[in-house]
Amino acid sequence: MMNRRIILLRIGQMLILESILMVFPLIVSLIYGEWKSLIAFAETIGITAVLGLLTMILIKPYNNTIFAREGFAIVAAAWVFLSLFGALPFTLSGEIPKYVDAVFETVSGFTTTGATILTDVEKMSRGMLFWRSFTHWIGGMGVLTLIMAIVPTDSGRSMHIMRAEMAGPVIGKLVPKLKDTAKILYIIYLVLTVIEFIFLILGGMPVYDSLIHSLGTAGTGGFGIKADSLGSYSPYIQWVVAVFMYLFSLNFSLYYLLIMKKFGLVFKNNELLVYNIIVLVSTGLITYNIFPIYKNFGDSVRHSFFQVLTISSTSGFATADFNTWPALSKAILFILMFMGGCAGSTAGGLKLSRVIILVKTIKKDIGHLLHPRSVSAVKFEGKTLDNNTIQSVSAYFALYVLLIISTFFLISFEPFDLETNITAAVSCVNNVGPGLSKVGPMGGYADYSDFSTIVLTFAMLFGRLEIYPLLLALSPRSWFTSSNKRRITKFRA
Amino acid sequence: MMNRRIILLRIGQMLILESILMVFPLIVSLIYGEWKSLIAFAETIGITAVLGLLTMILIKPYNNTIFAREGFAIVAAAWVFLSLFGALPFTLSGEIPKYVDAVFETVSGFTTTGATILTDVEKMSRGMLFWRSFTHWIGGMGVLTLIMAIVPTDSGRSMHIMRAEMAGPVIGKLVPKLKDTAKILYIIYLVLTVIEFIFLILGGMPVYDSLIHSLGTAGTGGFGIKADSLGSYSPYIQWVVAVFMYLFSLNFSLYYLLIMKKFGLVFKNNELLVYNIIVLVSTGLITYNIFPIYKNFGDSVRHSFFQVLTISSTSGFATADFNTWPALSKAILFILMFMGGCAGSTAGGLKLSRVIILVKTIKKDIGHLLHPRSVSAVKFEGKTLDNNTIQSVSAYFALYVLLIISTFFLISFEPFDLETNITAAVSCVNNVGPGLSKVGPMGGYADYSDFSTIVLTFAMLFGRLEIYPLLLALSPRSWFTSSNKRRITKFRA
Repeated sequence: MMNRRIILLRIGQMLILESILMVFPLIVSLIYGEWKSLIAFAETIGITAVLGLLTMILIKPYNNTIFAREGFAIVAAAWVFLSLFGALPFTLSGEIPKYVDAVFETVSGFTTTGATILTDVEKMSRGMLFWRSFTHWIGGMGVLTLIMAIVPTDSGRSMHIMRAEMAGPVIGKLVPKLKDTAKILYIIYLVLTVIEFIFLILGGMPVYDSLIHSLGTAGTGGFGIKADSLGSYSPYIQWVVAVFMYLFSLNFSLYYLLIMKKFGLVFKNNELLVYNIIVLVSTGLITYNIFPIYKNFGDSVRHSFFQVLTISSTSGFATADFNTWPALSKAILFILMFMGGCAGSTAGGLKLSRVIILVKTIKKDIGHLLHPRSVSAVKFEGKTLDNNTIQSVSAYFALYVLLIISTFFLISFEPFDLETNITAAVSCVNNVGPGLSKVGPMGGYADYSDFSTIVLTFAMLFGRLEIYPLLLALSPRSWFTSSNKRRITKFRA
Repeated sequence: MMNRRIILLRIGQMLILESILMVFPLIVSLIYGEWKSLIAFAETIGITAVLGLLTMILIKPYNNTIFAREGFAIVAAAWVFLSLFGALPFTLSGEIPKYVDAVFETVSGFTTTGATILTDVEKMSRGMLFWRSFTHWIGGMGVLTLIMAIVPTDSGRSMHIMRAEMAGPVIGKLVPKLKDTAKILYIIYLVLTVIEFIFLILGGMPVYDSLIHSLGTAGTGGFGIKADSLGSYSPYIQWVVAVFMYLFSLNFSLYYLLIMKKFGLVFKNNELLVYNIIVLVSTGLITYNIFPIYKNFGDSVRHSFFQVLTISSTSGFATADFNTWPALSKAILFILMFMGGCAGSTAGGLKLSRVIILVKTIKKDIGHLLHPRSVSAVKFEGKTLDNNTIQSVSAYFALYVLLIISTFFLISFEPFDLETNITAAVSCVNNVGPGLSKVGPMGGYADYSDFSTIVLTFAMLFGRLEIYPLLLALSPRSWFTSSNKRRITKFRA
């Protein structure tokens, strides 16, 4: 039997944390005297805190065992409830009247997608815009990982939760204790965010704007506060954001290695090398391709580098409307949408590690075709990958393509052009944000029907949690049928 | 060392066969008194026959050993030379002046793609149009398989060739002797073609048109002889072609089972069942979606069924310009482009078997996530698949997606819209023919530059041969470095 009590208990914990986190936007609303927003946040904090406390008081778990399936279920349920409650302030304040839209916007925030249904972002209150960008920051590293880092309970059984919430094919611990790993990751995350904030302030950006964009960059989210995203900020600001989008799309364990002064390991990192090559080549090609538009090398490089990073890091900010760029540039950006950043970063997408492992697996298979009796292994980052990892990466890839195709099919009931629907599906599943045509960087998702909005909401969640947790939580098999099997296993053992 | 002599010898054989096959279009040219075409065919027959005979006379192989890599190399080289010589008549007659275009058209024929660079097909001579459609028929089942079926030599070592030329994840023999399997397949192929021809004649279609369309349907090719493809033929003709596109996209071993009266095995066939469901559901949805256009149930069903079959069988004929259909219909057809028909048919694409195996692998993986210590197998058509097959299907899928993305990237230097370039890449790799937008069923590939034409030519070849043969033939590793390895193996053994 699935250990439902432990799941409820963790949801309760999560709701209490969410109510605490919402104090920040409440303070922002207070500072700017936005009473309507303030009341909406206060109400939501009240509801969330009471529900969370009730759960914590009423539920007593029989045992604290968290197996893989409990881990998946906790992560899936936590993210759904996080979003459902996180959406309340938008609707309670009347700023996003339709709850379906508010949930889309909140999921887009937590999953660090940055796709928006807003048609005029500049009309929103500052409190709401802060909350919207803060969800990027919370979702980037993961809310359950945050709980792990700060709540002083036994987390010996929480590996399954972290594995399900963090992204990438192989999740390793930096240090023996999981709790310490979570702490270190969050400290690196916080410090990098603060450094970006300072750099933005130094460039003359207002404090509020700097805060918003630091939070959005850190989570590789992409929610902005202007109609043209970052288009009207200075080149300096644009460069700073671009560089930090790059930094946040790298594997965070590299920063830990830097702190530990293991520079050799950083230089030997395969994924980093490939990522740098891809970013450089893409930037070069696009710079060449858009030069006739900007007629200025500096502008062309900046716009090219920014747009390459905004897509490869799956952030979704923009300094230019790349929807109007030539075919080659659009094609490169479209292809980059699939890749995503490095594993162990806050970026979405397939993750470059997986792409590298897939290519190496193909190479091995070709060798095997030529020499059927030869035995060769797939090596990655100096380690030989076992067959299970290789097969699970291939299977994940198939599932990922299936998810994109299903999403595309389900939103094709909309009368939009193929380019809009296909890039919307790809962009949401990969947590990028903007697509092309109607959902381009200067467009948005406002015109989609409620049905498609819900489909895309799920697509973003599936993408952020890398499919399995949500898929398992939605499958009745994990809730019912399996109890017998395990009992039989125990009996046999 | 790669056994190069045996490769050359097989190419020689193939060239002689090609020169014999070209006698048919020569006769057609003679009947219609098209002297220019007749001379072009005569010249090509001369060149091909002489080269073939010279090769056969001059080359004496040390031994007849054909390992996997020789098999791949033979198939890759045979298809390239087949196309290079098959393109000569088009250019020699001046009907397709540019050789690059002629090669594209010929590869499109042999690979049963049906993509065309012609802007006015009705201006072509009847001899050339016959040759163009005849290439579909030859390429559908495979030219080397044809040699195997008719040349009375020891074919004990030819399994690798057939495996590389036939499509699908698992190639089985119908009968113990490979040669007999090839014969049976070709007889079924021929008989079905003749039956379609009779049905078309009975519908009042001219003999020449019936012949052309039977050949094109059998190979699931799609080259037509009218500007509107099959749009101006009667509903009866359209139904006949649609039904035969269906029949030719089924696994041919099912026909053998029917002949052997093993009806139970046919009914139990998993791929057939899923294929029927997909065809029915797609036809239903599109009928509903296009009903407002045709305002008539009969027309809507016919156009829907025809277009679903033309895409799922990867033929590429058309009775309606589906490029003007609503978004949902276009999305369904676009998704069907990837799937292709059943394994062991003349259809292109990924093949439904692979899709089913992928989905089952995903299911197994999910079960494994829930119960890490459980052991479960992937079953397909009543047999348990070994790990090697499962892994090779997953790896092939990744390679296939990589091929589509690379093709798309390389043709994105063209200033066309994303919809054109993406569907062109998908359509050529899957050997469908038409795409959407500029390359829609009433458009064509004429506007692509020489560079993109060459890229798409390779994409079609890669798709038809299922990537590996051509990839291995292009890799220097298979020609040079491996000889030592094998010697070492021998030494050790």
